[in-house]
Parts: sequence; C-alpha cells; structure tokens
Amino acid sequence: MCELLGLNANVPTDICFSFRGFAQRGGRTGDHADGWGMAIYQGRGCQLFHDAAPSAQSPAAGLLQQWPIQSTCIIAHIRKATFGDAGLENCHPFRREWRGRYWSLAHNGHLERLPEGSSQRFRPVGSTDSEAAFCWLLDRLDQLDPDPDDALAIAESLHEGCVALAQHGSFNCLISQGDWLFSFATTNLWYLTRRAPFRRAHLVDLDLELDFAPVTTSGDVVTVIATQPLTDNEEWTRIQPGQGLLFRDGDCVADWHSPVPEHRFDLAALVAQRRQQFG
Amino acid sequence: MCELLGLNANVPTDICFSFRGFAQRGGRTGDHADGWGMAIYQGRGCQLFHDAAPSAQSPAAGLLQQWPIQSTCIIAHIRKATFGDAGLENCHPFRREWRGRYWSLAHNGHLERLPEGSSQRFRPVGSTDSEAAFCWLLDRLDQLDPDPDDALAIAESLHEGCVALAQHGSFNCLISQGDWLFSFATTNLWYLTRRAPFRRAHLVDLDLELDFAPVTTSGDVVTVIATQPLTDNEEWTRIQPGQGLLFRDGDCVADWHSPVPEHRFDLAALVAQRRQQFG
Repeated sequence: MCELLGLNANVPTDICFSFRGFAQRGGRTGDHADGWGMAIYQGRGCQLFHDAAPSAQSPAAGLLQQWPIQSTCIIAHIRKATFGDAGLENCHPFRREWRGRYWSLAHNGHLERLPEGSSQRFRPVGSTDSEAAFCWLLDRLDQLDPDPDDALAIAESLHEGCVALAQHGSFNCLISQGDWLFSFATTNLWYLTRRAPFRRAHLVDLDLELDFAPVTTSGDVVTVIATQPLTDNEEWTRIQPGQGLLFRDGDCVADWHSPVPEHRFDLAALVAQRRQQFG
Repeated sequence: MCELLGLNANVPTDICFSFRGFAQRGGRTGDHADGWGMAIYQGRGCQLFHDAAPSAQSPAAGLLQQWPIQSTCIIAHIRKATFGDAGLENCHPFRREWRGRYWSLAHNGHLERLPEGSSQRFRPVGSTDSEAAFCWLLDRLDQLDPDPDDALAIAESLHEGCVALAQHGSFNCLISQGDWLFSFATTNLWYLTRRAPFRRAHLVDLDLELDFAPVTTSGDVVTVIATQPLTDNEEWTRIQPGQGLLFRDGDCVADWHSPVPEHRFDLAALVAQRRQQFG
C-alpha cells in the first residue's frame, strides 16, 4: 500500500516538520519505498515533485525537508507498488488541468476495477489503478459540469464519485485544486487541526520535537491529514469509512457520510458477491 | 524575454553541466529572474520543477546543478516576465496530458494574439501568451487527430501550428512528450550535437570546463538546444526563422522550413498591416 500526507491552512505554512517524519516511512521506518511525490499549491500555481527513488533517500525529498515552501494546500504521497510498476509515471500525486486549474490526487488503497462511464477525455499516463480512478473522477466532473468555483458542489460530486469507486476496493484519497483540500476514507486516514494555543509536537518516526508557539500567530489554523498519525503527543481524529471531508482555510467546512449501508466497503464481501453474480 | 534550454540524447544523460551555465542567466549573468522551470522525461514519466524565484538563487535550481538525473529528453526555461505576472503559475515549461502522454512546452518570444479556432478543451492556468499558445497547439492537435505515436506527423502538425502562431509575434519554442524533442525558431535558437570524438567544453556563463571524453562512449549522441550558445569553444548552429527541427535519439531527424515567404516573421510589418486592416 501507500501513505498519504496533506496540509490545509489559512496562512501560508511549510510542511517541513511533517514531511521529515513522513519521508522516513519511505524506506526507513516504513517499506513504502517505490517512489514519492508532492504537489504544493501557491495561488493558481502548483509545484510538483516526483521521484521513483525512496523518499528516505531521494535528493529532492531531502530538499523538501529543509526548504520551507509556504503554501495553504499540499498533497504528498509515498508509494509501495501494488498495481503498476515502480516507475516515475506511477508516482502520486497525479495532476491534470480542468477548467483552467491544476487538480491533483493521491490515493492509498487498491481498486479491483473502475465503474462504467468514462469519456476518456482524461487518460492515465502510467499503469496504476489510482491514476485511472483520478481520470474517471475528472471525466465524471466534466460530464456533470458543476460550477468549478463552487467548492461545496464540487466536493459533493467528488464524494459521490469516491463512494462509487470505493465499491470496487479501498479508496483513501486527497484531492485539491489549490483553494481547498478534499479527503475521503475507506480504511486509514487521520487528521489533526492545530490552532491557538499552539504546543509542542513530537514525531513518531524521528526523535524530533517542534514547538509551534513561536512560529505561529493566534489566528493560524492548520490541518494535517495522514494515513497514520505523524505525532505521538497530539489527538488525531480518524476519518470514518465512506466519510468525505472538505477542508478550507485550515478548517473542516463540510462533511459527507456514506449515503447507503452497502457503501461500508467490506471488500471481501463485495468481491464474494461479485464472484457469485458474475461467476 | 526568456531563455530556453533543451536536451535530446540517445542515452540517458544529465543536464547538470549545461544547467550550471544556463541557471546563471536567471539573475546573475542575465536578467531572466522571474522564475524558471524544467521538465525531465524518464520513460512515460516526467519530473517537473518550477520556482518563481530566480534560477541563480532557487534551492531547487541549485539541486538540479548537482543531481545527475538521467534523461533523453529535457526542457528548461528561465523567465523574464513580459506578458503575465511573475507568479509560479506562469513559469514554463507548461505540461498537459494528451492521449495518455505528458506534453510539455517552453516558449521564448511574445505573441500579440492567438489564431482563431480553439476548442477550449485545454485551458491556461496562468496568464501568459505562452501557455495560451500551448493550449491552442494542443487543441489543434486534438482536432486534427494525427496518430500520437507518429512523431513525423505530429511534428509536421506542430510546425504548421507554430508557423500560424508566429504570424502574431515571435515564437521560439521547445516541445516534447518524452520520445522526441521538437524545436521551432523565429528569432534566437541554437543547437549543438555532441558525438565521438568527445572533447572539452567551456561554459560562457561560468569559468567551468568539462571533458566529455571520460564520461561518454563512442556511440553517444547528445544535442543541446539553447536561446544563446552555452559554450564558447564549440560550433553551435543557428535554427533559421520559421524552421522546425525534430530531434530523436540525439540527432536531428527531420527539418521543416517556413512554407511561404510571408511567414518570415517581420513583426513590425505584420502589426502595421493588421492596424491598417482593422483600424
């Protein structure tokens, strides 16, 4: 599998501290050693970093642990190849332009297949189920044609799409176009919102502590989302199976639950059911 | 204006030496200090680097002068903002997915306007004439529908598109999807093909010399393309106004000249003519 890391804040914030812990899981404290990537939004622009090397060893991942790029929306991913080779083209996050903005997705999980109905306007470059799912989600948005500036309408449509995808496996994901960050979970995804009074945080993956108090102001709100909690002295909240959360300006601003009981993502039961149906 | 740098080779090659000289022009030996970018292809994958900071000072540009990423197709750009703000979203190269491959373009020049006929399938994220021209070229390809794997057909279509764009200004560009590199010139673009026997090269922008002989084999062929020659002891060839060149495996494999005399890009005459026509 893979691991996800996201950041959403109301003030430009760097991800160096979180990424110092997270990057260790790509070959040192974890075996997610088949490449990594990061999308860092600044206004309409988006810096992309990808490397097929393990994040614990990649020169660019080393740079991003030291270089405090200021952003309000960041998506990062470390990969353990399950579906698709360990090549650069299969490193997340994937990015496409839709309606004049850069949209990015990173995925943790595994899909047996995709739902029907792709227009093939967006096509995968690599061979992962994740990039195919991203293209399917964008194709669906393009067909449904919601107002791209209406974050609630977009997130609702993304939640419906994620629920449909998750019927075919496990689908934890982070999606952004720079103004907000949408998260969806079926198995493992946690978040933590830091706000005043800021305190010390201690990483799980490195014996490293940071006191946020001197580097923040009282109005700052910063959410960090990760497959597994990154710190061991803060209270992380688990995103529930089927739950979609929309983060904007550092806060969770909308919350969708799985609409029907069968969307509770029991993969084994679904596979057994499909086998019975289709022989 | 801006400056372009491209590399095409028959063996994976790093661009560190050329980029060490080129990056100086972004704030040190040249005033192209409004950001920079690089697209480095590896198979179907593509590493993108962008920063709105001057390349002579950017941490990521510093990294790329030391990190020998091996590639057969690279496009780099340093920017001096003329059209569009100095923001991250306006840094070249621009990249889009078309038919399951990543297509990139970097531009040097200035376009007064675009030709008619865009489908708006591809839309600019930033505000440069360059990204708008790239979207126009991809829209045109999508409408003409040539075989995306037929490099000659694609390059011919790109040459026609570039000629049409160049009627509205100056358009020096580099385009790639990873298998080949297409270059088009109206004003300044030079190339140099290195092959055995390899010799020493000395940079214009830094007092730095590299002997390619010990780091190459006899079959290596490497072309470097740049707005201004990067070395002062090698023979660079100027790409002629209206000329399109297709490079593959390090060699120039096809060459298109401007088809009609009026495509000789006398911008002043064209602007005067349009003013007379449209008042």
